[in-house]
Amino acid sequence: MPELRKDLVTHKWVITGTKTEEEFMQTLAPQEEVSNGMCFFCEGNEGKTLPEIYSLRKYDTKPNTKGWQVRVVPSKSAVFKIEGPEGKIGHGIYDLMNNIGAHELIIESPRHIKNISELPIEDIVRVLKVYQSRINDLANDDRLRYVLIFKNQRPKSPYRYGHTHSQLAALPLIPKTVKEELISARDYFSYKERCLYCDVIRQEQKDKSRIVEENSDYISFVPFAAGFPFEIQILPKSHNADYRRESESSLKNFAQILKLSLNKISVALNDPPLNYVLHTIPYLRPVLGYWETIQKDFHWHLEIKPQIIEITGFELGSGFHIQPILPEICAKILREAK
Amino acid sequence: MPELRKDLVTHKWVITGTKTEEEFMQTLAPQEEVSNGMCFFCEGNEGKTLPEIYSLRKYDTKPNTKGWQVRVVPSKSAVFKIEGPEGKIGHGIYDLMNNIGAHELIIESPRHIKNISELPIEDIVRVLKVYQSRINDLANDDRLRYVLIFKNQRPKSPYRYGHTHSQLAALPLIPKTVKEELISARDYFSYKERCLYCDVIRQEQKDKSRIVEENSDYISFVPFAAGFPFEIQILPKSHNADYRRESESSLKNFAQILKLSLNKISVALNDPPLNYVLHTIPYLRPVLGYWETIQKDFHWHLEIKPQIIEITGFELGSGFHIQPILPEICAKILREAK
Repeated sequence: MPELRKDLVTHKWVITGTKTEEEFMQTLAPQEEVSNGMCFFCEGNEGKTLPEIYSLRKYDTKPNTKGWQVRVVPSKSAVFKIEGPEGKIGHGIYDLMNNIGAHELIIESPRHIKNISELPIEDIVRVLKVYQSRINDLANDDRLRYVLIFKNQRPKSPYRYGHTHSQLAALPLIPKTVKEELISARDYFSYKERCLYCDVIRQEQKDKSRIVEENSDYISFVPFAAGFPFEIQILPKSHNADYRRESESSLKNFAQILKLSLNKISVALNDPPLNYVLHTIPYLRPVLGYWETIQKDFHWHLEIKPQIIEITGFELGSGFHIQPILPEICAKILREAK
Repeated sequence: MPELRKDLVTHKWVITGTKTEEEFMQTLAPQEEVSNGMCFFCEGNEGKTLPEIYSLRKYDTKPNTKGWQVRVVPSKSAVFKIEGPEGKIGHGIYDLMNNIGAHELIIESPRHIKNISELPIEDIVRVLKVYQSRINDLANDDRLRYVLIFKNQRPKSPYRYGHTHSQLAALPLIPKTVKEELISARDYFSYKERCLYCDVIRQEQKDKSRIVEENSDYISFVPFAAGFPFEIQILPKSHNADYRRESESSLKNFAQILKLSLNKISVALNDPPLNYVLHTIPYLRPVLGYWETIQKDFHWHLEIKPQIIEITGFELGSGFHIQPILPEICAKILREAK
């Protein structure tokens, strides 16, 4: 059975035991290629996924049939279970937790398209609205503390995961990186009485050299201390901690800058694999003292990390990054990419 | 010029600007293969590296000629410079630092051997002693706070880096992961008055199920909340914060368990790429209040991370790991590997 375990030293949580020894060894063997007609995510193959949780589809079509634009299904790897009590358990000096939660796949197009940036703006807006709906829906489950939305984009993959999709992990805990951001933002606010991220936006607008693109609502830039080459962050320019609160017209501008930023990465770097992750506010459950002020402190954002150099255990074992190319040069290359 | 920059939110340091745009783009192109006779690290090719900093060699041989067993040379990528003042500088709201430090390559054998575990125990002991010597030598530079020793092992690489070697980064700061460990260990000690790592060893000895190997001085196990499949930690069983203090007889046992653990990974997982990183005490400069107690709190150790699944931006963007196979199963597979 899967378990959530906490590292005593680093305080990172890990979900483990999601596969048996045999299943895991199979994942190391070469995967079978999936030809277009056989992709589980393509329209017409609805029966090959688990039944859908949510979809945007034509008025007169039924769930799990053709006629959808965006489709959300549970992941087949049973990483989380939705039933059962929450709560931590001890094992000697160690901590573990029930693996309450959800792991969903958000299929972004009925067609076998590889990159979200190939979709028209209005289709991307639909996906961004589905992110909001899913976070809102899962808020009804009191045991959940956080919803992490992310994408592993593998344009060159001949396998199923070549079909454009995002993933959602609903968790009974706040992931460590998000917690660190919340604490940093709170510390900064209590010292300066200003939002850390708003100050970063002002500094980037002043320096100009790391900006990739700006529109009326959003800014896209390479962070001053980017840990990976061509890393990009996208932030709303008006202070907002909660992604769910963005209006439809704001999401249009988010879709525009997201499409453009991803296209620039694709053009400049020959369509590399990449990840993005959305960091929004946690569910406002009364757990820690800073929940009340968190809406002032925090600022939602999207982090995009192209994978063009190998991530080694060195970075993970030290928390120290060697990133060979200056953020200002990365931004210049991306600005100039057409 | 290279710079050390600090991320305002995550407090991670990154060294950036080590390559120009042209140099970086070249690293993305396919590398030239290196045939055995042409390897810069092989005996007879001493002139192809920068002049050696340190070596263990036969009594009557000269530096930068044949006759060595272990050879330490500066890295050709000028990541750090050894001259210049230390100290932080502001850039608007951001922090940066002079890239004072050193980046050295420790060539572990004059022969073109791929994995350190193929060397006889006495050759591995020599390498482990060189780690001690280099940390001791660099302690004389007051501007340095930490020496990180690590290895990127790439057994299948046809390039130069296929020749067994370790790397050393001498830094004007304590890397984030090490700092977190120091703080965790201090918090635990001040609450329990016991070393966190000594307690982990006792728990592992009680549970037995995650132990890979044990000898009179060392224990090798898969951590309870391992973030990566088949991750291993090796710890000295007697409390010691400072790797430099291990005796020659202790290093023999360290070499034995290291060779055995790496061999087991190699046999069980078909010789995968892997990383290891040594976490020892920082230089005892009077910077933070906990330096005095750190020798009681902390416990040096080696972390080995085989790279058999892709490390994605998801892990890095969330600090939350999905590790499919239970640590107890990983340990069983490794124990049984011959």
